[in-house]
Amino acid sequence: MGKTMSEKILAHAAGQDTVSADDIFWVKIDKAMMDDILGPRLEIADRLKEIGGKVWDPDKVIIISDHYTPPANEKQANIVKYTREWAKENGCEHYYEFDGPCHQVMVEKGHVLPGEIVVGTDSHTCMYGALAAFGTGIGSTEMAGVLATGQTWLKVPQTVKVEWNGALAPLVMAKDVSLKSIGTVGHAGATYKTIEYCGSTIRGLPMDERLCITNMAVEAGAKAGLIGYDEITAQYLAERGIKGSFEWVNPDADAGYCASFAFDAAALKPQIACPHEVDNVCDIESLEKVELQQVYIGSCTGGRITDIETAAKILKGKKVAKGVRLLVSPASKDVYSQCLKAGLFEILADAGAVVMAATCGACLGVHSGVLGEGESCISTTNRNFWGRMGSKSSNVYLASPASAAASAIVGRIVDPRTI
Amino acid sequence: MGKTMSEKILAHAAGQDTVSADDIFWVKIDKAMMDDILGPRLEIADRLKEIGGKVWDPDKVIIISDHYTPPANEKQANIVKYTREWAKENGCEHYYEFDGPCHQVMVEKGHVLPGEIVVGTDSHTCMYGALAAFGTGIGSTEMAGVLATGQTWLKVPQTVKVEWNGALAPLVMAKDVSLKSIGTVGHAGATYKTIEYCGSTIRGLPMDERLCITNMAVEAGAKAGLIGYDEITAQYLAERGIKGSFEWVNPDADAGYCASFAFDAAALKPQIACPHEVDNVCDIESLEKVELQQVYIGSCTGGRITDIETAAKILKGKKVAKGVRLLVSPASKDVYSQCLKAGLFEILADAGAVVMAATCGACLGVHSGVLGEGESCISTTNRNFWGRMGSKSSNVYLASPASAAASAIVGRIVDPRTI
Repeated sequence: MGKTMSEKILAHAAGQDTVSADDIFWVKIDKAMMDDILGPRLEIADRLKEIGGKVWDPDKVIIISDHYTPPANEKQANIVKYTREWAKENGCEHYYEFDGPCHQVMVEKGHVLPGEIVVGTDSHTCMYGALAAFGTGIGSTEMAGVLATGQTWLKVPQTVKVEWNGALAPLVMAKDVSLKSIGTVGHAGATYKTIEYCGSTIRGLPMDERLCITNMAVEAGAKAGLIGYDEITAQYLAERGIKGSFEWVNPDADAGYCASFAFDAAALKPQIACPHEVDNVCDIESLEKVELQQVYIGSCTGGRITDIETAAKILKGKKVAKGVRLLVSPASKDVYSQCLKAGLFEILADAGAVVMAATCGACLGVHSGVLGEGESCISTTNRNFWGRMGSKSSNVYLASPASAAASAIVGRIVDPRTI
Repeated sequence: MGKTMSEKILAHAAGQDTVSADDIFWVKIDKAMMDDILGPRLEIADRLKEIGGKVWDPDKVIIISDHYTPPANEKQANIVKYTREWAKENGCEHYYEFDGPCHQVMVEKGHVLPGEIVVGTDSHTCMYGALAAFGTGIGSTEMAGVLATGQTWLKVPQTVKVEWNGALAPLVMAKDVSLKSIGTVGHAGATYKTIEYCGSTIRGLPMDERLCITNMAVEAGAKAGLIGYDEITAQYLAERGIKGSFEWVNPDADAGYCASFAFDAAALKPQIACPHEVDNVCDIESLEKVELQQVYIGSCTGGRITDIETAAKILKGKKVAKGVRLLVSPASKDVYSQCLKAGLFEILADAGAVVMAATCGACLGVHSGVLGEGESCISTTNRNFWGRMGSKSSNVYLASPASAAASAIVGRIVDPRTI
């Protein structure tokens, strides 16, 4: 039987000719990523000190202050300061702050290569699978071990195959593909498994859109979310000066999957995840009337240039409904600059949107757009858990930038195809 | 003896032919402004209910949620929500949120006319004096009375004359004029007095720059800061569709002043207010080396188009120093759009600046750029009190946008003329 992507990547990292699902191995870590909120300050620095360890290879450690930038209170400011100083003291020169959400910075700055094992102290580290890297979130104690040794143990995950074929209809986006997949697999349907996304639909998506899909694999419980290496991956890497032969990561035709799901892209309608679970998904058109107070377009699953271009196209010449605030936060400082040069913010500002800096803030309710009591928000972020964006009586609906932009105009959740 | 501007405006509001300094009168309020942080939720709504009152004239009440937008936590979000709902319930249609700092919104949306009495629940309400209006900050209990009756009592202030003549040198701005004036008058030198700013320098300044000066009159303890009505005032009003004959507000040539200060603009060097008092002012060139972690360009005393244009001119083709964050927050949503159309954000972003939404946040340390322990910031805001922008061990230095931009490039406080 052939091998899945996970089996190939983990065999390589474990120094084995071949491995199989459920095998446990020590693997070499190619990159370790820490953010501010769950970074050095949270046990990691203390545990590392306790065991007398030091960073095994500072060049392989990337530290990104993103959740607490710009700081909203002294505690957040001190955590960013601590993170900055820890990076410096430990010789980690790949330190970023105010550059935007870590995952986007990681891929856009060329820190992720196909076939690599990348661990991060953030659950959405699985996003790197769009570049055919085995990215996965780990806890703080485990990160301390990784920093000291450059290794961790991993059980080779079984793999769920999620295949999408056909062309997406206009205004149907990767976020819809992602939500439909999670809604079908279920929020625990892929626990400690890898999801391999494949098929002609996936192959036809630009990297921006692929990143949105693999980012959310963890919302089905997955350890990793992978997409095969191809011309689009090669092109994305080439733009960052990275060349190489990475075809070896791709799955064999006869690879063994523990489960398979197949979807017809042409039949997909815009999706929405209703409160308070990411797999609580339905066609947006079937939703009863939901009045909105906030619309949020941003984050590592909805703030890339493709996302903001799509939103701008819908908002051009229109106005945000009275009583609704449309907040836009690009996925990184680089994306911010791209939007500026493309004139997208002028379109958004003319429509009444509030453009903010690139930050994680609102996504997890720690600043830059927190929800008040009983408020409802349609958001392009990746989680809608109870109280995620603020008040425990608020409601978060997850949808694509197209759906979010259209809903901002109407003031309630609408199918973007009706605008 | 002739009359000062305060005496003329207060006589008009009190329905008297003439009044003199130290007289006490009931005056009619032309506009009442409330923000979110010190607005309805803070006693005002309760006190109004208690006395069975209702808003005397909703068309004269302007409510602006600006300090807590975008909200950084649930409490802030609930205050914005409360403010919004209170405005609606009380028929106040002039409600703004996410539009940026209240004072800029007030003047830019045409809510302030020469000769008017405008009270606001924010100490920098004195800014409206640049439009020859008697703007002054009042407390919450007093605002409840104003809302119920449309009146308040005022003692006619004595007036301090601050005269500036001559042309400012390049890179010397209104902020420098303002700081030098406050440094000389002293932080309590004009307590319950009006400062009348006059002279050829003031007359030569555009409205943006005048607003910066009158805004900070309260930092010398002043009840109001006034500038005479002239062609520049008329032009600013005309752009907002406001016409009228307002020359009557101007002081008589033989008006009586309690004190007078005269300055030579040509001799003025860039100024800086050192921690932790606004009148702790010196020439920036005389300052010992001060390393910076943050540079903040924004607020109602440093985020207008003139300010951001000046900063962009200095930052063009340069880079913000490593280890320093340059945060830019325009003074309003309208200024944000002006900057976009003028291509200023591209210049700032290329230099490494982080452009944020228009908000009061960082100025008073409630979000969007709070300082951590021991951090130092040069800021274009209007207060550098102990702990104002965050940690009690942080330091805030107030200076012009030119000085702030130049310092961002070097990474420590510098005289902009040396760049």
